[in-house]
Amino acid sequence: MSARRVAPLVPTLPVVPVEAFEPPYYAAVFTTVRTLDQSEYGETSAYLEELVKDVPGYLGMDHAQTPGGLGITVSYFRDADALTEWRTDVEHRAAQQRGRAQWYETYTLHVAKVERSRGFTRAEVPQGPTVG
Amino acid sequence: MSARRVAPLVPTLPVVPVEAFEPPYYAAVFTTVRTLDQSEYGETSAYLEELVKDVPGYLGMDHAQTPGGLGITVSYFRDADALTEWRTDVEHRAAQQRGRAQWYETYTLHVAKVERSRGFTRAEVPQGPTVG
Repeated sequence: MSARRVAPLVPTLPVVPVEAFEPPYYAAVFTTVRTLDQSEYGETSAYLEELVKDVPGYLGMDHAQTPGGLGITVSYFRDADALTEWRTDVEHRAAQQRGRAQWYETYTLHVAKVERSRGFTRAEVPQGPTVG
Repeated sequence: MSARRVAPLVPTLPVVPVEAFEPPYYAAVFTTVRTLDQSEYGETSAYLEELVKDVPGYLGMDHAQTPGGLGITVSYFRDADALTEWRTDVEHRAAQQRGRAQWYETYTLHVAKVERSRGFTRAEVPQGPTVG
């Protein structure tokens, strides 16, 4: 192990949602309630988040977690083939199985084709009073 | 104002995700980063959450909020007509406008038709070793 200072694995970037892409594309909505036994969940989750980036057609992922409450992860894919590739990935399947055995009290998965999307970002320019 | 003890507005129920319905149905995924000015956001949000229940075809809503991070709200509707009714609701539109003016730094909306869904709930029965 080197004593060099290294960049943090997760740099602190501004939080920004995945963009609104041009439809059609796919969204996989995964909503969970977790158990008390979360050992190795964090590592596995971080590993899968890197792994999915290798799937051609993967567009991005948003995640929100209410402390002690619901977690929602939405993954976006360009087409059904990309989704199928991720769903059947061997390491992903092993993690799913472990999730049912250990990490999740309950979950739902909704796989959906996006028909319409839009984004909003606040204008950077300060709005002052206008003089008529 | 009465001094009687009243039931809390939000009873503490177990957290459970909206179920996996029989496809097709619609999901509206609304992902946000909020501003520092959240005055009246809570009241408006709670009010709208009641109001949407009057829309025929409304199926339910899941919400997760990472403290200081992303918020994701997913609303489920039976069909496109139900979604249109909610999107064009006068009070909902007013809240959307206020959201852009005050509450949201940035957001994305993805409206999608659910093609496939499934749910998992941990079995209640304890699993002991089996004797072969």
